[in-house]
Amino acid sequence: MKKKPLILVTNDDGITAPGLRMLIRIMNEIGDVVVVAPDGPQSGMGHAVTIDDTIYCNEIVIDDGPQREYKSSGTPADCVKMAVSEILDRKPDLCVSGINHGSNSSINVIYSGTMSAAVEAGVEGIPAIGFSLLNYAWNADFNPLGDYIKKLAENVLENGLPDGVVLNVNFPKSQKFNGIKVCRQARANWVEEFDKRVNPQGRVYYWLTGTFVNMDKGEDTDEWALANNYISVVPVQFDLTAHHFIQNLNNWNL
Amino acid sequence: MKKKPLILVTNDDGITAPGLRMLIRIMNEIGDVVVVAPDGPQSGMGHAVTIDDTIYCNEIVIDDGPQREYKSSGTPADCVKMAVSEILDRKPDLCVSGINHGSNSSINVIYSGTMSAAVEAGVEGIPAIGFSLLNYAWNADFNPLGDYIKKLAENVLENGLPDGVVLNVNFPKSQKFNGIKVCRQARANWVEEFDKRVNPQGRVYYWLTGTFVNMDKGEDTDEWALANNYISVVPVQFDLTAHHFIQNLNNWNL
Repeated sequence: MKKKPLILVTNDDGITAPGLRMLIRIMNEIGDVVVVAPDGPQSGMGHAVTIDDTIYCNEIVIDDGPQREYKSSGTPADCVKMAVSEILDRKPDLCVSGINHGSNSSINVIYSGTMSAAVEAGVEGIPAIGFSLLNYAWNADFNPLGDYIKKLAENVLENGLPDGVVLNVNFPKSQKFNGIKVCRQARANWVEEFDKRVNPQGRVYYWLTGTFVNMDKGEDTDEWALANNYISVVPVQFDLTAHHFIQNLNNWNL
Repeated sequence: MKKKPLILVTNDDGITAPGLRMLIRIMNEIGDVVVVAPDGPQSGMGHAVTIDDTIYCNEIVIDDGPQREYKSSGTPADCVKMAVSEILDRKPDLCVSGINHGSNSSINVIYSGTMSAAVEAGVEGIPAIGFSLLNYAWNADFNPLGDYIKKLAENVLENGLPDGVVLNVNFPKSQKFNGIKVCRQARANWVEEFDKRVNPQGRVYYWLTGTFVNMDKGEDTDEWALANNYISVVPVQFDLTAHHFIQNLNNWNL
């Protein structure tokens, strides 16, 4: 009998998040699952790592599934490092992160704790996928995503991913999916509007809010796919070099 | 008389860090400087943003220079958002971040608060540079960097940068610079070694430590340049799409 793949599962919404619990159930159908996830929400953590503070990490039982689970006080990237270095006997065959409660499409990839875990796995040479649903509701229905997630995970296990590439998968809020589209990241950003308030002691403070602005009209982008009820799959790299600008930069007077 | 450029200065080591104070002095020679920087160290914060907590931001006077300064309880990326949205009357002509006490070369770019501020500025359409010195000492000598930083900033002000590109500049620890080299990001990673300890209450905790491993023998990388006493300049993009893999991915059975 073929050996079952070892699958590391993590997220940034915390170990009790329904999106993570769903992802665990799907992965249990494919392989041997180990969960190392934050003990609380870590959204917007980007690729933060804990270097000035201690990290706790303890085994925990949450449901009666076959997976082993650990909750950590660290960031999503810390969780992957901890799993690889301290918990797992061998390098996992796959790392999946999510299912995030909310979008990680377009520029959100750089703020995303979900994707930072997938990228961290990629840096360590582990094929990795981040999954997100464009619905912030804690009780969002993740069931319609199951078959697509299973198929994507099985494809990655079978085909592998090139060195330096991980996948960023986003599901539209609508449950009527038109299928899967391979996309590029749309050029978009957040226009911030800080909500300025005064606390009971008279001190000014702010909440970060903002409006997402898509400046990219391309029909090959993740934003276009999601707006048209497709599941978007963007291959993401962590070589951030803007290779196309090196030639020009070499002509500067430096 | 030509209008002086407006320059936003930030960092991730905190507003009192000597590297930031040096960068402010250099920028005061070039333009009108506004500083918005974290009130304490934020190293390893990656591209974190503060969405579940309040942000404080107050004007502060630290020295008798002509710059305006604000300290913020937010992350480096928050500082840039705050500056653009709440503090500055117009979009700055340049954003500089650093000088970081420690390396942000190679894969460190994805963990770097210094670079997250530069990238955030780039996302908002502001030409931006992150500067780092490969010396973690608080009292490192930043003086030999001055002329190079000024020249790089002036070049960016004059030439601009393409949409979606910022610069990641690292200085070798040695003070004998062989010049500036335009590079690509080396393929490297950290091999983690968690330092496992027991606290006075008997609970296990960890410190994240690790060894930097450069797997990239190329002589066009930032690691090669720095090892050979060159100042490395890597153009960095925040379109993370692995365009080279899109064609292949479209042939998967999805």
